[in-house]
Amino acid sequence: MKTGHQQLDGKGNLKHFLTIEGLSRGLLVEILDRAEGFLGVTQQAVKKVPLCRGKVIANLFFETSTRTRTTFELAAKRLSADVLNLNISTSATAKGETLLDTLRNLEAMQVDMFVVRHASSGAAHFIAAHAAPHVSVINAGDGRYSHPTQGMLDMFTIRRHKGGFADLRVAIVGDILHSRVARSQILALNTLGAAEVRVIGPRTLIPAFAEEALGVRVFHDLLEGIRDVDVVIMLRLQRERMTNALLPSEHEYFQLYGLTEERLGVAHPEAIVMHPGPINRGVEIESQVADGPRSVILEQVTNGIAIRMAVMSMCIGTQNIALQADGKTDGEANG
Amino acid sequence: MKTGHQQLDGKGNLKHFLTIEGLSRGLLVEILDRAEGFLGVTQQAVKKVPLCRGKVIANLFFETSTRTRTTFELAAKRLSADVLNLNISTSATAKGETLLDTLRNLEAMQVDMFVVRHASSGAAHFIAAHAAPHVSVINAGDGRYSHPTQGMLDMFTIRRHKGGFADLRVAIVGDILHSRVARSQILALNTLGAAEVRVIGPRTLIPAFAEEALGVRVFHDLLEGIRDVDVVIMLRLQRERMTNALLPSEHEYFQLYGLTEERLGVAHPEAIVMHPGPINRGVEIESQVADGPRSVILEQVTNGIAIRMAVMSMCIGTQNIALQADGKTDGEANG
Amino acid sequence: MKTGHQQLDGKGNLKHFLTIEGLSRGLLVEILDRAEGFLGVTQQAVKKVPLCRGKVIANLFFETSTRTRTTFELAAKRLSADVLNLNISTSATAKGETLLDTLRNLEAMQVDMFVVRHASSGAAHFIAAHAAPHVSVINAGDGRYSHPTQGMLDMFTIRRHKGGFADLRVAIVGDILHSRVARSQILALNTLGAAEVRVIGPRTLIPAFAEEALGVRVFHDLLEGIRDVDVVIMLRLQRERMTNALLPSEHEYFQLYGLTEERLGVAHPEAIVMHPGPINRGVEIESQVADGPRSVILEQVTNGIAIRMAVMSMCIGTQNIALQADGKTDGEANG
Repeated sequence: MKTGHQQLDGKGNLKHFLTIEGLSRGLLVEILDRAEGFLGVTQQAVKKVPLCRGKVIANLFFETSTRTRTTFELAAKRLSADVLNLNISTSATAKGETLLDTLRNLEAMQVDMFVVRHASSGAAHFIAAHAAPHVSVINAGDGRYSHPTQGMLDMFTIRRHKGGFADLRVAIVGDILHSRVARSQILALNTLGAAEVRVIGPRTLIPAFAEEALGVRVFHDLLEGIRDVDVVIMLRLQRERMTNALLPSEHEYFQLYGLTEERLGVAHPEAIVMHPGPINRGVEIESQVADGPRSVILEQVTNGIAIRMAVMSMCIGTQNIALQADGKTDGEANG
Repeated sequence: MKTGHQQLDGKGNLKHFLTIEGLSRGLLVEILDRAEGFLGVTQQAVKKVPLCRGKVIANLFFETSTRTRTTFELAAKRLSADVLNLNISTSATAKGETLLDTLRNLEAMQVDMFVVRHASSGAAHFIAAHAAPHVSVINAGDGRYSHPTQGMLDMFTIRRHKGGFADLRVAIVGDILHSRVARSQILALNTLGAAEVRVIGPRTLIPAFAEEALGVRVFHDLLEGIRDVDVVIMLRLQRERMTNALLPSEHEYFQLYGLTEERLGVAHPEAIVMHPGPINRGVEIESQVADGPRSVILEQVTNGIAIRMAVMSMCIGTQNIALQADGKTDGEANG
Repeated sequence: MKTGHQQLDGKGNLKHFLTIEGLSRGLLVEILDRAEGFLGVTQQAVKKVPLCRGKVIANLFFETSTRTRTTFELAAKRLSADVLNLNISTSATAKGETLLDTLRNLEAMQVDMFVVRHASSGAAHFIAAHAAPHVSVINAGDGRYSHPTQGMLDMFTIRRHKGGFADLRVAIVGDILHSRVARSQILALNTLGAAEVRVIGPRTLIPAFAEEALGVRVFHDLLEGIRDVDVVIMLRLQRERMTNALLPSEHEYFQLYGLTEERLGVAHPEAIVMHPGPINRGVEIESQVADGPRSVILEQVTNGIAIRMAVMSMCIGTQNIALQADGKTDGEANG
């Protein structure tokens, strides 16, 4: 499995984190277990561990996202790393420098990790394929393809509430076709052995051959789809889909697919409700549900920092092992 | 006194710092005393204390102010905190997320303190009223209402030069009507027991019923107003007042209310001159005075960092006490 | 030599770093030697030394440059300093505050060092001349005049490859007239005793009287100029020169002055190729050379951080000596 192998070093440890595809159940569980340990760190008074002290992590955001950038920045700082926030549009690429020249320069500055967000699918893989051996790449969302830390923070949230994935029925509601979040969630749920993954949405927003290609059950009716499920994941409605005529009005969307307290009644009595945020109140979810007792939406945000700390420290750990194999030390110099 | 109580925890310790209104003289003196201790820190070679290590302080500036943001950022770093600078206009609120959803998300990221600057009066109170129990809010200026750290740094500067507030006559000159700085100064001076607070300005820029409502003496003539005072505080002239026809030209303003060396001669021989900055040279103050021996304008800047360290560490201290009462520890985890 | 003296304190130690002009060979060698020690720091796992802990370094970039700002920021963080990035155009100068008032305010905030980049020649000298005694100023490039850390990182790169400067022939190719980089390199090479410095370019882009004024040999033919040299330094072509009619097309420039593998054949067999970056591939240099075995362009980037650490720590060191002479201590307070 090529995509999986690109992410691992020779000993099978995580070097890049680009996609859930091709990663083993064991590795996903290792990420979840490590995040469990970090959850305590983010909740104590001194929210710091020294695992990445002296490391430099560069946020390369070609697509703006304050929320995601902030959680990666906080995760890096809790690991005691130094963070560079690079606004790519104003940087040297604007002077005609190619993307690869920009990467080569950052590598020459001894940056240890790139966190990449890009509007084009495959951008993070491209950067990982061309990065220097000492650099790790984390995908913070590329095009429609993948958003693996979001997928894993969702798995972490589910496991904390449901204990595990066997016997679990999960429904994902909304624009599956354009959603990198849904794609990462489906891959992770199937790898972790969820009993059943359902996707629910209008025909225009479900990929062709979804059942065969993704291993999910497809529903076009919300009530049918969420009946008896243990987890309901609502996706954010991208408003630009309306102008593309893929969807009628927001009002009509809410009539058909908006999650209300009443509709939630057909799910399992202990079902939880998730959303990657930011939520559109009254469009894909009503406030009573978003703010209600079944909602774990804000827990997802907290868990996102623990998951990002886990993935970052695992990738940096691979580098340290490689350095030690080279005979270099990990200590502090006196200049 | 409702506004005062909103700022204190159950034991009377400072939890938020939103306004001078309703705070006791004892508490204001405690802030000044604590700042005195920090002044040494900002002047030594290693300008660091570990009081807020591992804490995350988010600057929420809805209104741009490099100077104020920088002093809060420096104060936070000298307390060893991590600082997030959030440009609100480009963040998720631009994606249609409500302000409260943005706050909920930052709280879920375990941010410990919001430093808020906003063009609308009451914004900091609103945020404090809706913040999670573990979060403190510091008002860095809201509308015309309050700028309490500016008020306290001015008190600190006065106390360092004059020893105390009894027997002290203070004049504030300029646009009292629109000034959150003046409002905070007047409240602090009256709480700390200054003998006399005077406000000086054209009728259009002095609030109605100022004497009764604010406890000040009103003057419309500069020389009458500053006669024999110990402290002259000049306010910055907001140039947009001209276009609103509240004021004639800058030149005419300087003729009537500009502080010159000659006019300063009617004040007490040891009077000091203050200004919150940035100054408009030749508009509200001439350079000879701004740069002269009576001016303490740059000391105010230095003192501002000590005051902000004092307020931030007092609020964070309340959180630590609350955490310890919950049985949580303050130590560092090993992840 | 006035410019040299402005940069040194009473004991001849480096206080500001504004230009190579007037600095002794001994001082330049001290910078190179110190950078050699820091090169190890930038390559180990924990890239930190505590030499500037608690110091505040403000990047004052009046002219945007992500690359240069990033290397200064990384150098400061590796020295454990706190860094303020100030976007000058949006700061108080936009409110009508003068540059000197902005400086006075930053000094009052106990900033220890200004790193200045400005489009006008002499800006860094102006700021150093008006800075408070406790503040150091580093020139990160001003107008056409000087870019001394770039000049020194180039010297460092040459010394690491060639061992020293005696017997060395160096050619600088391109727009010498407008280049602060070339000016700094020429001054450094002559001070360090290079056998021969050549400049190569069209007549419109070579300063009048260059031979006498700069101590270089002038060539207008590329092959003549780089014959037998040990080092070829290519300058970046500023595309705006075309519109000013100082140059014909990019294509014609490459025909005359573009460095190709074939042309490089006339240089010494062990000649190295340098470029300050970012490179214009196919304009001043072809990719085969830029990415080839003679190119040390990315090493220059790595070396730039070590040189900046060296210069910053030397200037801060002068401050510490001055503080100790004042009887102040270097320790950490407990607030």
